[in-house]
Amino acid sequence: MTAMPDASRSEAATALVAALVAALGDKAVLTGAERPARNDADWSTLGPQAPLAVLRPTTTEAVAAAMRICAAHGVPVVPQGGLTGLCGGARPLAGSVALSLERMTGIEAIDPASASMTVRAGTPLQVVQEAADAAGFLIPLDLGARGSCAIGGNASTNAGGNRVIRYGMTREMILGLEVVLADGSVITGLNRMIKNNAGYDLKHLFIGSEGTLGIITRLVLRLFPKPACTVAALCALPDYASVVGLLAASRRGLGPMLSAFEVMWPDYWETVGAMPGVRVPLPQGHAAYCLIEAQGTDETFDAPRFEAWLEAQAEAGLLADAVLSRSVADVKAFWGVRDACSEFPQVLGPHESFDIGLPVAAMDDYVRACKAALAERLPGAFALFYGHIGDGNLHIVAGLKGARPQPKDVIQEVIYGLVREFGGTISAEHGIGLTKKPWLGHVRSEAEIALMRRLKAALDPDGMLNPGKVV
Amino acid sequence: MTAMPDASRSEAATALVAALVAALGDKAVLTGAERPARNDADWSTLGPQAPLAVLRPTTTEAVAAAMRICAAHGVPVVPQGGLTGLCGGARPLAGSVALSLERMTGIEAIDPASASMTVRAGTPLQVVQEAADAAGFLIPLDLGARGSCAIGGNASTNAGGNRVIRYGMTREMILGLEVVLADGSVITGLNRMIKNNAGYDLKHLFIGSEGTLGIITRLVLRLFPKPACTVAALCALPDYASVVGLLAASRRGLGPMLSAFEVMWPDYWETVGAMPGVRVPLPQGHAAYCLIEAQGTDETFDAPRFEAWLEAQAEAGLLADAVLSRSVADVKAFWGVRDACSEFPQVLGPHESFDIGLPVAAMDDYVRACKAALAERLPGAFALFYGHIGDGNLHIVAGLKGARPQPKDVIQEVIYGLVREFGGTISAEHGIGLTKKPWLGHVRSEAEIALMRRLKAALDPDGMLNPGKVV
Repeated sequence: MTAMPDASRSEAATALVAALVAALGDKAVLTGAERPARNDADWSTLGPQAPLAVLRPTTTEAVAAAMRICAAHGVPVVPQGGLTGLCGGARPLAGSVALSLERMTGIEAIDPASASMTVRAGTPLQVVQEAADAAGFLIPLDLGARGSCAIGGNASTNAGGNRVIRYGMTREMILGLEVVLADGSVITGLNRMIKNNAGYDLKHLFIGSEGTLGIITRLVLRLFPKPACTVAALCALPDYASVVGLLAASRRGLGPMLSAFEVMWPDYWETVGAMPGVRVPLPQGHAAYCLIEAQGTDETFDAPRFEAWLEAQAEAGLLADAVLSRSVADVKAFWGVRDACSEFPQVLGPHESFDIGLPVAAMDDYVRACKAALAERLPGAFALFYGHIGDGNLHIVAGLKGARPQPKDVIQEVIYGLVREFGGTISAEHGIGLTKKPWLGHVRSEAEIALMRRLKAALDPDGMLNPGKVV
Repeated sequence: MTAMPDASRSEAATALVAALVAALGDKAVLTGAERPARNDADWSTLGPQAPLAVLRPTTTEAVAAAMRICAAHGVPVVPQGGLTGLCGGARPLAGSVALSLERMTGIEAIDPASASMTVRAGTPLQVVQEAADAAGFLIPLDLGARGSCAIGGNASTNAGGNRVIRYGMTREMILGLEVVLADGSVITGLNRMIKNNAGYDLKHLFIGSEGTLGIITRLVLRLFPKPACTVAALCALPDYASVVGLLAASRRGLGPMLSAFEVMWPDYWETVGAMPGVRVPLPQGHAAYCLIEAQGTDETFDAPRFEAWLEAQAEAGLLADAVLSRSVADVKAFWGVRDACSEFPQVLGPHESFDIGLPVAAMDDYVRACKAALAERLPGAFALFYGHIGDGNLHIVAGLKGARPQPKDVIQEVIYGLVREFGGTISAEHGIGLTKKPWLGHVRSEAEIALMRRLKAALDPDGMLNPGKVV
């Protein structure tokens, strides 16, 4: 494309906005002073970028019309949900239009017999959770950003969370989708059946592709039974082999009751132990700490069973120490230790955060290798390790105390370089967006990336939908 | 394409075979009298069709080479697993080459810490199950054809089975895939992590697309903990509302222990009750019969809990009658009632079989409408209804006693016409293949089918891979 002179560009933008206003109404097209600053950025570390306009359609037809008009004007569209993504997937691009689903909210239907719920994509996750709860069901997807993130964004990033070990990723909770493609056509596949092998299962194209292949407008979610009780234990372990052993024993002994298996390495435990307001119920000095949670259907049976199981693990020598929850408050306090990481920005000062995945058996070797490499490349650097180990997901915060700016490039090189070496993934649950794109080649082959590009070209040949993201 | 004279066609075939033999060796290329007749057909009602040759490569590289050579000669390839499909997905096409994975067998690796197993695509399901069992794990996928079907075929058809309500379809059991594309390129994505959001999740393109987008050569399967005990009940219910109520109560009260929820309508019960060798432990005359199964992790807790739950349902008035399993033999006998349908060809004589899906709430209305329409269009026709109702999956066998040929077209029109009316699916677990293709438009929109075709064109522009199947 040849560069357009400023005046022509401004005229072109004016024509686009006029066409959008004519089709969607002026309330759905915000420009200039009316354009909200919040749509300029997501929760990634990338700075703000103003779009040409912020669109807030209220119907699927309006989303389709907006897509057609923008495509006709050659202006790309960046879909936006709750803007809580950490990798820049929803951040506007220069010269793009931001299309926010924030006014497409609400629960359309709940079908208790099929255990499914039809929702509009802009609905905040917490609203979806509460509606399921009121109908006697559970939406097991849960994230810290629940009050802000939108269910459509959760789907387009295939969000994870704490209970993946039991319920799977967002992908596993979706029965059907309605999607607007780059050419404005609407794919309505609001399936409510668990089994449906009638042709290609198209929804999987759009789940986890971060708005690069289509804009999710409506979803059919699978509803789960509400657990009747939750029990948990915090355990200290003598070595990583015991962590692997305890995970296997949890899977075997707790079966599908097992709802979380979180591991914290010693540096994490010590840092959190020093934070005001966090009650750390086990002493320092152990090799690893696990939070194990089970959700049961009957407290009479499941609480004693969990206790009996835990005692058996202690007898088998897997535990150095452990505390068992005796109340809902205990369970909450245990999670308080694991969730204390949300305070790290205040406690640790500037640092870099990572969301990687590794084969479970390799995880402790990775941690050692990572610490050694950081100590060599950045003497004095800190690194805390914790995560959803049951799912192969490790989180890392690392940095050089007080350094501004942080030596981000070196830290990324170390962490992602070792991910490649250990056969892991650079993104377990946060996606690729813009910030992780340079590292995609570390964990996906040329043939895989070529196929991703082929799909992108097939569905969005002119690059009108979130261009330059992911691939 | 203009028609080729016979002599040129034969010369072209000879050149192709020579090129294949040169690349793969003569043991991997069977033609003429050496070509096994079994590769001419699958378990569908379509008759046999001889391919030009049967290829039996032993490595991924050989599959890729075969694909490249066939593409260069313009001869399509039909991938074959265990040939147990019911819709013709693996049946050769005239002028095609059949590529059987039958010599690509074996377990490559088991990773207990990640609870995953890497297998070659031609491995029979039963071999995979037994290897998992020997390693202390469960492969929950199970079908009647377990001894013959190949795990690659299970993946490419997204096979279902009896325990989908707990473990999901085959799709949910796959962590990674290696696939050969139509152009012979190899996509190796042998991921072992539950969470991996690094770019598009390409495996979902190939799962359930019946070999039309790529040939699956290796798989990483998720391993599950072995259940410690299995308990079951056969229940008679007063009406369909009670079936829906009992399903909801099972989900709530048994939670993830619930491993099967099968329903049989009265006609089915009566037919099976008259079969020699089948013990039917509840009398005729009820509105519906359910087989409920739960898999627990500890018999001490789970068997009494199941019994207590069942008693509570009886007290709530959901059950007209019920028998509870007291032994593994009882559980087996209960399944004997449900599995007796495999004898229908002998018992009922010629008939048509169906695998459809419906929203759970609509199922009984569908059954009534179907019976009424069949009685009107085909006086004297029989129709038996049963299936995995917890997953929205209904099986039907229907026919006109003794008629040869069966009035197949009328029966299909009635059954699929009502599926469209009730918002169901024409294929819950068997796929589309060739036999259901004419009906795909009943349940997928024009926009959906257009997108399927767009994907097919993007991945296989020259129609070299199982052309004419599915879309």
